[in-house]
Amino acid sequence: MTRLEDGARTDVLVVGGGIIGLAVAWRARQRGLAVTVLDPRPGGGAALVAAGMLAPVTELQYGEEPLLHLGIASNRRYAEFAAELAAATGLETGYRATGTLAVALDADDKAELGELHAFHQRLGLDSTWVTGREARKLEPMLAPGVRGGLHVADDHQVDGRRLLTALLRACERAGVVLHRAEAAELLVEHDRAVGVRTGTGERVTAGRTVLAAGCRSHRLPGLPDGVLPPVRPVKGQILRLRIPAPYRPFLSRNVRAVVRGAHLYLVPRADGELVVGATSEEQGYDTTVTAGGVYELLRDAHELVPGITELPLVETGAGLRPGSPDNAPLLGPTALPGLVAATGHYRNGVLLTPVTADLLAEYLATGTVPALAAPFSPSRFARSSA
Amino acid sequence: MTRLEDGARTDVLVVGGGIIGLAVAWRARQRGLAVTVLDPRPGGGAALVAAGMLAPVTELQYGEEPLLHLGIASNRRYAEFAAELAAATGLETGYRATGTLAVALDADDKAELGELHAFHQRLGLDSTWVTGREARKLEPMLAPGVRGGLHVADDHQVDGRRLLTALLRACERAGVVLHRAEAAELLVEHDRAVGVRTGTGERVTAGRTVLAAGCRSHRLPGLPDGVLPPVRPVKGQILRLRIPAPYRPFLSRNVRAVVRGAHLYLVPRADGELVVGATSEEQGYDTTVTAGGVYELLRDAHELVPGITELPLVETGAGLRPGSPDNAPLLGPTALPGLVAATGHYRNGVLLTPVTADLLAEYLATGTVPALAAPFSPSRFARSSA
Repeated sequence: MTRLEDGARTDVLVVGGGIIGLAVAWRARQRGLAVTVLDPRPGGGAALVAAGMLAPVTELQYGEEPLLHLGIASNRRYAEFAAELAAATGLETGYRATGTLAVALDADDKAELGELHAFHQRLGLDSTWVTGREARKLEPMLAPGVRGGLHVADDHQVDGRRLLTALLRACERAGVVLHRAEAAELLVEHDRAVGVRTGTGERVTAGRTVLAAGCRSHRLPGLPDGVLPPVRPVKGQILRLRIPAPYRPFLSRNVRAVVRGAHLYLVPRADGELVVGATSEEQGYDTTVTAGGVYELLRDAHELVPGITELPLVETGAGLRPGSPDNAPLLGPTALPGLVAATGHYRNGVLLTPVTADLLAEYLATGTVPALAAPFSPSRFARSSA
Repeated sequence: MTRLEDGARTDVLVVGGGIIGLAVAWRARQRGLAVTVLDPRPGGGAALVAAGMLAPVTELQYGEEPLLHLGIASNRRYAEFAAELAAATGLETGYRATGTLAVALDADDKAELGELHAFHQRLGLDSTWVTGREARKLEPMLAPGVRGGLHVADDHQVDGRRLLTALLRACERAGVVLHRAEAAELLVEHDRAVGVRTGTGERVTAGRTVLAAGCRSHRLPGLPDGVLPPVRPVKGQILRLRIPAPYRPFLSRNVRAVVRGAHLYLVPRADGELVVGATSEEQGYDTTVTAGGVYELLRDAHELVPGITELPLVETGAGLRPGSPDNAPLLGPTALPGLVAATGHYRNGVLLTPVTADLLAEYLATGTVPALAAPFSPSRFARSSA
């Protein structure tokens, strides 16, 4: 069990009540730990805006095989994770085993998807090449110009907002303390993190402090230099359309494409919502929805699925993906004793939620870093520069 | 003075508390009449969505000279109308004497604007041809491809929302009764309109009943056939962007263009709002904001003023312009004694508000139709088919 400092109020203090922080808190509580989540507005963060695509295979990048394994592990846990949450809370998460279709709009796209398909095959991943005709048979709303692509049967989807709501309730029911306050300063005593001072001056002390504050994690005052690499904000603008009943299903699975170099995806939910994402902009802590961002998404989506023209545009939004220096998450103990990281999930926060929660809870309960988490040590950048 | 029916509760009952209904009510009250406005939510209607461009010269259509005269008369009254409203209420209307620049993006547009300019000159209107270079000197954010156009010094702007708020307060202060209920049925007795039954069954009787319910005017149950022509809804989708302080003024006057056959306008307000309008869609009583509508506005605006890309997109909306069969307003007494029309203003409701209010008040107070209103008699369609 976690060693407690003198005067500690909780075993584990999670800073940040977004999707990662809440899931870690819930799982850690299930392991018998006393857990507090510190956040002025728990249930917020990037997952409120995210499309919720669970696509480790379709989104595979060269050189990111460790991340692929983590993503696949998380994806495999999702059905059970969602079922367990539903049983605990009575709330649905919108988890849907739809599969994903990634299509090419021109010869370059086709060549790129062809290489991805070959890579999938070398890794033994389930991924099927489809012709343009087959793609349109799967998704009749696709533009006539679609030249084929990849059908990935195991890349699914979940609704980030429903998931946040369910996790918040699961935490409350499990006895996680939700402390609605700002984290103003990390408390470090005798070279050990011992908790956080809140914006109102209160000390919340803990055996372990878990930083799960997304792109604000490394900006917590009091954090010693070199303990956590910068977690930069990568802005994503996203649209929510509605599919009126007479048009349904409209799309039956996630549809992805690269349009003019931008990654576009359309995620159709069971309740008729159609999420269209996302821009990727590195310009600081700005969540403004811009005319240009919305324009590009609509233009590209229109090229891929012309029929969206008729759909109501219900909502526009922007969130900040937390990007570590190598775009892989920061999981587990830091160089500062008592301080643990669960952040830097970049584009994969929703996907990696179940596995992150399991790995962190295991570490918090046992003090041992599970093998699956080892490649994602927050200290990996310090090591490589040493 | 207006002859009152037995048991009448008011001299004038205005059905519809949009911009036209409120302005008519205010002016009629100033003439000493007892006035009631019937609307479940007064201060609403198409002006809530409108850009508020006051552009009778730039928007001139061939064969619409009577409407031009009405528009110019209203435009000339605007500064005083706004000042009077401000004095009565302490509220600003956002009236701004900016002028308007109508530009051409290709050779066809240029030819069309050239013809409009010649037409302006024949009619003695103030309209100056500018080259592309001169246009960009006036508005440096214009796309390099702009080929010139027309500078119309007297076509200005007002903020429809502020105007509604001010009119509502002016009515309240002047003693207009705001009756917050639905009009369920026109009451006709002895071949005369005598008021309205409300949705809750109440009878509100009046010497004159003024129909100012926009595109719902002709659908009032109880309205005898042939008294009012249909007033069709013409949907307009519109965007509201924000010009952050460092970018201002961004644009200094209204900018218009025809892009791919669609009329586009950008109206920059003093408070940093930039309105981009508008689609024109005839598809019934539908105010859905669609992916296609927003896409087209952003695409065309981006072509005209590429710098909009950086601007926050704050709001999207849709309203219904009330279009009569000839797109000109319906002003004055109808064939049914006691029933008066003030509707069908189509794209010109905000522009025509001051003159409509003055003409209707004059008629309601004196029983004489002013000469300026005569071409817009609601009976003109019945006459032409007879």
